[in-house]
Amino acid sequence: MSIAHPYILFLGDAPDQLAAKTANGVAMWRRSWCVGQLRLAGCNATVGLPDVTLEEGVAAGAKTLVVGVANRGGRISEVWQQTLIKALELGLDLASGLHNRLSAVPAVREAAQRLDRSLFDVRHPTREFDVGNGEPRSGKRLLTVGSDCSVGKMFTSLAIEREMRARGMRADFRATGQTGILIAGDGVSVDAVVSDFISGATEWLSPANDDDHWDLIEGQGSLFHASFAGVSLGLLHGAQPHALVLCHEPGRPHMRGLPGYKLPDLGQCIELNERCAHLTNPAARTVGIACNTSGLDAAGTDRALGELADRFGLPAVDPVKHGVGPIVDALVG
Amino acid sequence: MSIAHPYILFLGDAPDQLAAKTANGVAMWRRSWCVGQLRLAGCNATVGLPDVTLEEGVAAGAKTLVVGVANRGGRISEVWQQTLIKALELGLDLASGLHNRLSAVPAVREAAQRLDRSLFDVRHPTREFDVGNGEPRSGKRLLTVGSDCSVGKMFTSLAIEREMRARGMRADFRATGQTGILIAGDGVSVDAVVSDFISGATEWLSPANDDDHWDLIEGQGSLFHASFAGVSLGLLHGAQPHALVLCHEPGRPHMRGLPGYKLPDLGQCIELNERCAHLTNPAARTVGIACNTSGLDAAGTDRALGELADRFGLPAVDPVKHGVGPIVDALVG
Repeated sequence: MSIAHPYILFLGDAPDQLAAKTANGVAMWRRSWCVGQLRLAGCNATVGLPDVTLEEGVAAGAKTLVVGVANRGGRISEVWQQTLIKALELGLDLASGLHNRLSAVPAVREAAQRLDRSLFDVRHPTREFDVGNGEPRSGKRLLTVGSDCSVGKMFTSLAIEREMRARGMRADFRATGQTGILIAGDGVSVDAVVSDFISGATEWLSPANDDDHWDLIEGQGSLFHASFAGVSLGLLHGAQPHALVLCHEPGRPHMRGLPGYKLPDLGQCIELNERCAHLTNPAARTVGIACNTSGLDAAGTDRALGELADRFGLPAVDPVKHGVGPIVDALVG
Repeated sequence: MSIAHPYILFLGDAPDQLAAKTANGVAMWRRSWCVGQLRLAGCNATVGLPDVTLEEGVAAGAKTLVVGVANRGGRISEVWQQTLIKALELGLDLASGLHNRLSAVPAVREAAQRLDRSLFDVRHPTREFDVGNGEPRSGKRLLTVGSDCSVGKMFTSLAIEREMRARGMRADFRATGQTGILIAGDGVSVDAVVSDFISGATEWLSPANDDDHWDLIEGQGSLFHASFAGVSLGLLHGAQPHALVLCHEPGRPHMRGLPGYKLPDLGQCIELNERCAHLTNPAARTVGIACNTSGLDAAGTDRALGELADRFGLPAVDPVKHGVGPIVDALVG
């Protein structure tokens, strides 16, 4: 893979801000890679970048049009196709995190072939992976793990990358999901890998490196999620993490998508993740807790984070409200 | 799926007995489904069935030619192709557990299309699965789990099916690997499923059933295997097992394929499997230990099994040497 930037972020006819979540993530974490946003008639979203036409974007140096919008059913609508094909004609590659592949749209596929441009369907791994070998490798790795799905693992990993780089440390975010891959320009959508190769794909994603280099690996799912725990365990073993950061959203009534399942106790969550991590890295330890406290007011946030910090003796922060400085402190301390 | 029997077992030009391992398994567990074995010149293996030609097999009622031989590199050799195509012409379906698909051999694929016969590449799931939902379902389920890969999980599951049926209990083996699928005539090769769907595929494989019915689900890998634990955990959650049987081979120097990894302590193995199983079935408990003691003499076998039985207070047997009666006793007791 390796998606070329600068990007134009395509918001299509996104009916609301949530539909442009992917573009939002790219604009937040890789603003310097983005020359602008491209919106069609009816678009009700913005990611705060200047609006550009394809021609203006290309003139500004853009290399790839990133489909940063999810529409109902993940389909690539007729109205988008004209824009996508014109982008190819202007010399851009296309990248998308949608379920339905760009390459499955005949007109888009044919134009890309004719013009020798690349289509990156980042949700669908194209590479073959080896089975994980579990052999110790050099470099340092941090993995975000969760009490549940969608609790901020990607955000936390990226915030740690940003904090480490600001301190002059060598660090790279390693993406395991579609938005993360568009942000990193590379990565593996691990939940789309054939299950025999989960840990092998993760080993490939975070290869041996210098002793002072940190890979910040985006976690997926939760060991306590009845649908996806297999992915989480393969990722944990393949990552061979030195450090774990537990991500959590206080107050969820049940596990995402599973009304019959309560959230796990966080002590058990830390303990089981560390225990399983020790199989491939006996040095693994939890270094912090990152909470999404968007549902809490200032007093509630302080109380929730204070309780976690006291109970576990670990820094507990909301990466959005406070950044992740205390977690990086704990890591280097 | 659902592969029609009776079978003819195709041993091809198997250079030795080990190459015919799949056919061996089918002949051992489904002898009544097999009208005979078909061997080419140079075959040095037998599964103890009468040799038949394709014509004789068809005359005896065969519906499917089962490729029960693994050759170097998993390829379908030129010399086999003539036999496979002739089988299709005589009205047989083909089934294979090889990595390389029957349907990837142009001459075989074209003959099957022309003659409207089915090709079953059982290592490659063709169905789409839902994400696991974790909802409790009726019926009873037993899952074999392992200290390692290739420690007799399929054999143990099948031995329990046979023992239960001999006692008049209602029980069905549920296959999760290629040899098991050829034995059952149906199943899912879970390690070839996209990783998001491991537990969903297992839920599909062992659906709700009557309260007195047992599904005996073939386990895969081990929670302690650095390459494959993700598959094992997804399978454990999707199976929602009431009963676990731990399979083990005493004396292994290291985990299969991983020279740097020792076998886990069996107490930890039981504890971690039960703990993870409790997520989707709080009633899960280990009911027995099945050991492959083929490397031990009679005294060594008695000592090894006696120690395990004393330590864990569970029946410990070698299914080959002693059957699994004591495990079924513990289950119904």
